[in-house]
Amino acid sequence: MSEFALIDRFFASLGARREDVVLGVGDDAALLVVPPAHELVAAVDTIVAGRHFPEDASGADVGWRSLAVNLSDLAAMGARPAWATLALTLPALDEDWLEDFAHGFGALATANGVSLVGGDTTRGPLTVSVQVLGHAPAGRALRRSGARVGDLVYVTGWPGDAAAGLAVLQGRLVAAGANRAVLTERFRRPEPRVAFGQRLVGIASACIDVSDGLAQDLGRLAAASAVAAVIRARELPLSRALHAAAGEARAREFALAGGDDYELLFTVPPAARTALAGLLAGGAPACHCIGEIVAGRGVRVVDERGDHPAPAGFDHFR
Amino acid sequence: MSEFALIDRFFASLGARREDVVLGVGDDAALLVVPPAHELVAAVDTIVAGRHFPEDASGADVGWRSLAVNLSDLAAMGARPAWATLALTLPALDEDWLEDFAHGFGALATANGVSLVGGDTTRGPLTVSVQVLGHAPAGRALRRSGARVGDLVYVTGWPGDAAAGLAVLQGRLVAAGANRAVLTERFRRPEPRVAFGQRLVGIASACIDVSDGLAQDLGRLAAASAVAAVIRARELPLSRALHAAAGEARAREFALAGGDDYELLFTVPPAARTALAGLLAGGAPACHCIGEIVAGRGVRVVDERGDHPAPAGFDHFR
Repeated sequence: MSEFALIDRFFASLGARREDVVLGVGDDAALLVVPPAHELVAAVDTIVAGRHFPEDASGADVGWRSLAVNLSDLAAMGARPAWATLALTLPALDEDWLEDFAHGFGALATANGVSLVGGDTTRGPLTVSVQVLGHAPAGRALRRSGARVGDLVYVTGWPGDAAAGLAVLQGRLVAAGANRAVLTERFRRPEPRVAFGQRLVGIASACIDVSDGLAQDLGRLAAASAVAAVIRARELPLSRALHAAAGEARAREFALAGGDDYELLFTVPPAARTALAGLLAGGAPACHCIGEIVAGRGVRVVDERGDHPAPAGFDHFR
Repeated sequence: MSEFALIDRFFASLGARREDVVLGVGDDAALLVVPPAHELVAAVDTIVAGRHFPEDASGADVGWRSLAVNLSDLAAMGARPAWATLALTLPALDEDWLEDFAHGFGALATANGVSLVGGDTTRGPLTVSVQVLGHAPAGRALRRSGARVGDLVYVTGWPGDAAAGLAVLQGRLVAAGANRAVLTERFRRPEPRVAFGQRLVGIASACIDVSDGLAQDLGRLAAASAVAAVIRARELPLSRALHAAAGEARAREFALAGGDDYELLFTVPPAARTALAGLLAGGAPACHCIGEIVAGRGVRVVDERGDHPAPAGFDHFR
C-alpha cells in the first residue's frame, strides 16, 4: 500500500464533519472558514514513543493522546477547537496499528467536533505531531498573563492521577483493582477540559493547562503574569484512588510535580467569584481552590511543615 | 538550559513581525487574525533525517527545507502564507545546531513574510514538522481538481535539478565546478514559488507542487481532476547544469521522476492563455508548457521512441 492509499484509507475523513471545511485532506492544503469577529487559535504538540508514552502503548492510546494534549492547549485559551492536522512518523507501515491509531484519534476528535483536515505520513521513528486549530471571540481568549495579586488559584479534576497511573504501569507504584484501573486510565486517556475552558472566558483572569506538573505550570502562569503563587498543600484535591495507592505525602508529590494531567489551572479575581460559583453549581467538572496569587516571583507550597519552594516538574530536555 | 529557555532563545521571534499576530510563541496557543472574506489555508509536512535530507545536512539547510516544503504547498493553492508552527524533535540539545536551524528557517520565513507563532521542542530522533497557515480570497484558491481536457500543462523552473543535486551529494552523479554548485544548491535551498502561485489564481485551472517527482505529481493532479495527462519529453525544461552533468536521457529521467523540486505544476485552459502570456511577459519565473490534458486516466510520456506510461516517483512508504 502506498503512502497515499494509506492516508486515504485511515485519515481521509477522521473526526467530525464540519460545514466550515471547504476542502479537507487530499489537496496540497486545507481550506477552512474562521467565523467573523473571531480569532484563529493555533497550538502544536509532539509526542514521542518512549518519552511521552510507553513504547508498548496501543495505537488507540497514542492517537487519543496526540490529540488530547493539543485540545488541552486550546481549552486553556478558552477556545473552541475545529480542525486538526496530523504529522505521523512511523517506523513501518503496520495497518493494524494505524487502524487502532485512527480509532483513538477519531473518537476524541468526534467527541470534540474536530475534523482532521490535513496529514502527512512519513517513515521514521514513531513521532506524532498534531496541530489543532480553533477559534475564540476576538479579544476574549484566556492567557497565562492575566493573574493579579489577590486572585485565587483553581485546578480542575484530580492532578497527580495520571502521573501515578504511569508509575503503576512502570512498576514504580503499586495499585490493584479499581484503583489501578482509575489511575492507569487517567494516564492512558486524558480528557481535555474543552467545554469548561470556554465557560471560563470572562471569569478566569489567567489560565494554563497542566502538562508538565501543577507546580511548574503554575510557575509559568505566575511568570507570564509577573506575580508569585502560593499553593496550600492541604487543599490539593487528591483522588481516592491516588490517596489509597500512594498515601497522603506521596500523593501530594504526584499532584504537585507529576505531569500528564491535562487539567486546567486558572486564576479568578475577587469580582468573579460569584460567577465561578454559579458555573460550578451548574454541572462543571470538579474544581478546587488550591491557593492564591501574591506579589513576588515563583511558586511556594505551604504545608504542615511550613513554606517551601515548589518542586520542579517535567522538562523535555532535562 | 531548559526546553523553555531554549524556545525563548531561538524561536520566540523568528521570521516576520506581523500585526495580525495577536499572541505568538509563549502561551498555550497563538491568536491570529484571518482577513475578512478570506479562507484559512493550512498545510503540514514533516521531514526526517536520512529520509528527506542527508544526515549531515547543516542545521540551516534543515531549517530552510522544513519551511520551504510547506510554503510550496501554500504556493500550489495560490495562498498567501502568514504564520507557521514548528514541532522540532532533536536527539540532543545542540545550541550551535539550533542557532543554525533558526537562521535557515528564519531567513526563508522573513523573505516570505511568515511569522513563527508556536513551537514545541522535544527530545527524540531528528524530525521536523512544520505547519504553515495562510489565507486566500474566499472561493479563489487553486486546487488539484480543476483540470479539464484541452488544458495545457506547465511547470515552473528546472525540474530534476534538485534530484540531480542530491545524486551529486551522494556520489551517484558526477558534476564539478559551477554545475555542481547549481545542482546541489537547488537541492539544499529550494525556493518555493509563493508569489507566482498567487498570481496564478484566476489563470490556472488546477495546480500542485512537485515534491515527489513531476510525473507522479501530475498523476495526482490528473486523478483529482478525473482526466489523463500527456508529457512531451522534448519540451521538458532541462537546465544547462543538469544537461551537462547527466546528458539528455538521464536528465529527462531526473526531470520526470526526481523529487524535491518544489516547482509548481499547473494547467491552463484555452481561454486563459492570453492572461498567462501576460503574466509570463511581466517578469514571472521561467515557466514551460510540457504537455496537455486529455481524456482518460494516468500520465503518459511521449518521446522519440513513442508513448510510454510515466515513471513512478518517490513514495515515503515504498
